[in-house]
Amino acid sequence: MTSVGGRRSRASVPDLVERARSGEARAVARLISLVEDESPLLREVMAGLAPYTGNAQIVGITGSPGVGKSTSTNALVKALRATGKRVGVLAVDPSSPFSGGALLGDRVRMQDHALDRDVYIRSMASRGHLGGLSWSTPQALRVLDAAGCDVVVIETVGVGQSEVEIAGLADTTLVLVAPGMGDGIQAAKAGILEIGDVYVVNKADRDGAQTVRRDLRAMIALAERTEEGWRPPIVMTVAQTGDGVYDVVEKIDAHRVWMEKSGELERRRVRRARDEIEAIAVTSLRRRWGDVHARTELDALAEQVVAGASDPYVAADSLLETYTER
Amino acid sequence: MTSVGGRRSRASVPDLVERARSGEARAVARLISLVEDESPLLREVMAGLAPYTGNAQIVGITGSPGVGKSTSTNALVKALRATGKRVGVLAVDPSSPFSGGALLGDRVRMQDHALDRDVYIRSMASRGHLGGLSWSTPQALRVLDAAGCDVVVIETVGVGQSEVEIAGLADTTLVLVAPGMGDGIQAAKAGILEIGDVYVVNKADRDGAQTVRRDLRAMIALAERTEEGWRPPIVMTVAQTGDGVYDVVEKIDAHRVWMEKSGELERRRVRRARDEIEAIAVTSLRRRWGDVHARTELDALAEQVVAGASDPYVAADSLLETYTER
Repeated sequence: MTSVGGRRSRASVPDLVERARSGEARAVARLISLVEDESPLLREVMAGLAPYTGNAQIVGITGSPGVGKSTSTNALVKALRATGKRVGVLAVDPSSPFSGGALLGDRVRMQDHALDRDVYIRSMASRGHLGGLSWSTPQALRVLDAAGCDVVVIETVGVGQSEVEIAGLADTTLVLVAPGMGDGIQAAKAGILEIGDVYVVNKADRDGAQTVRRDLRAMIALAERTEEGWRPPIVMTVAQTGDGVYDVVEKIDAHRVWMEKSGELERRRVRRARDEIEAIAVTSLRRRWGDVHARTELDALAEQVVAGASDPYVAADSLLETYTER
Repeated sequence: MTSVGGRRSRASVPDLVERARSGEARAVARLISLVEDESPLLREVMAGLAPYTGNAQIVGITGSPGVGKSTSTNALVKALRATGKRVGVLAVDPSSPFSGGALLGDRVRMQDHALDRDVYIRSMASRGHLGGLSWSTPQALRVLDAAGCDVVVIETVGVGQSEVEIAGLADTTLVLVAPGMGDGIQAAKAGILEIGDVYVVNKADRDGAQTVRRDLRAMIALAERTEEGWRPPIVMTVAQTGDGVYDVVEKIDAHRVWMEKSGELERRRVRRARDEIEAIAVTSLRRRWGDVHARTELDALAEQVVAGASDPYVAADSLLETYTER
């Protein structure tokens, strides 16, 4: 049996999985680290987790900076805990030095829950400076799912591509908006109207909240949605005081019930598994094609294309042929 | 020789390429359409263009909504034309119904140049609602390059992931900012500090322009840049009147000169060709793996993963094995 070295303990993967399932936070942390670090044990970890996955409802939270995302996540976790659920939180930090400081403060606030053994909070590094999710996010979700979380909340900074990615990973996507964010931002975020399963107007005690709600309702009615039978509800909250947060929990539950009945849950999960399998296969192929440290056939092909001696389609054929011959 | 059917003309691909090279706008339009529509002739088109590519300087323009991107593009095209250059413009439209209207107005304004045979303007649909570039953008760039454009300008709406993608496609990336856009937006856009080769403070006649310039200078000094020897300049413009636009042209020229001398141009182009070849190879593989209309092996594997009977790594191995056996 392979064993996992550590300063304070040595444990086999099956042992770690067992301890994670019984709620031991340190075992959960170790498993996520093995996943994030692309440990040689990664495959053994994934195989060990597989039989225990599929219970957790993955809830994605997205919204522009300033809508109160961290405060809302905090309030939501508290409310979910009060209904007796085990909760995991994956918080995707931006690696940008320009916003890191402020968010660090938010993370500390989340530690309200740090002494609660049924909440597991983990920050993950983001990919690049526009807040893309780390490639290992789906695997980290599997760890929390197998560890017995009923709900796993993923929260991002909500800039750039992360909100689309989060919708791809989540069973239920919460989109937060708030009054007073300016028309420019709202317009730029038109894309959020296709991804939200539940909309939350936070800071609902401020001027303009009703206008935001009305506009949102009109825009949701116009947006093209692929699913039949679910009309995304709009909930008004004041996350700071907790007002309305239980309504959000209720809508999250209602969405899960609807997804199970309608078959949408299975559809989303199969689609997600497809994406995950494909991404792993493509990553594995890319490693064979091009090692960043060495000159590879892909470099040689690229130089031919730049010189006009070949075109990208012919070059792609060569790449695939080389691969299949091996 | 394969011939291209059309209502008014029939022409072979080599013929179209020849006519595009002699500056015939209709031939350029036809070639881009063949590329966008993924015509069966696509491969023949790409092979026909290859020997004539590599001359054009690809200039990407990005910036938040409201900074005056279309007005700036318009002014820049006018200035480039005045220096005797042939110019192509690819404008990536958002497909979102919420901003389509406003941008349509911008597009019409661009038609200042429509009667100028040495400017070719083309709108392309964006991928998804966050303004991602269409997969065919690199191929459309090759058409304009082969058609003899000295400069090809790509302009996007600058929301979501498009700005990172544009930097990946461009030889020279212009980042536009403007005073009075609010701190939130500037902070959210911290990612732009790693991608700009030339920064433009537009609306420089407004209050706060000097503050924006000073902040930008400080932030650029802090940002981690990979290239040695190019310090991104900041140019002040009023695109509406044309003030400062020739300075932008000068910096674009200076950037090309530096890139050629330093070898950076070749490096960027090889990297871009690598990405393009890889994307085509991956797309071709994905088509073999999963046909969206039929149930495929990938679906079966995904269902096993959802059921906990397999994990994504084992499934990815199966997928790759099936492929190599064929």
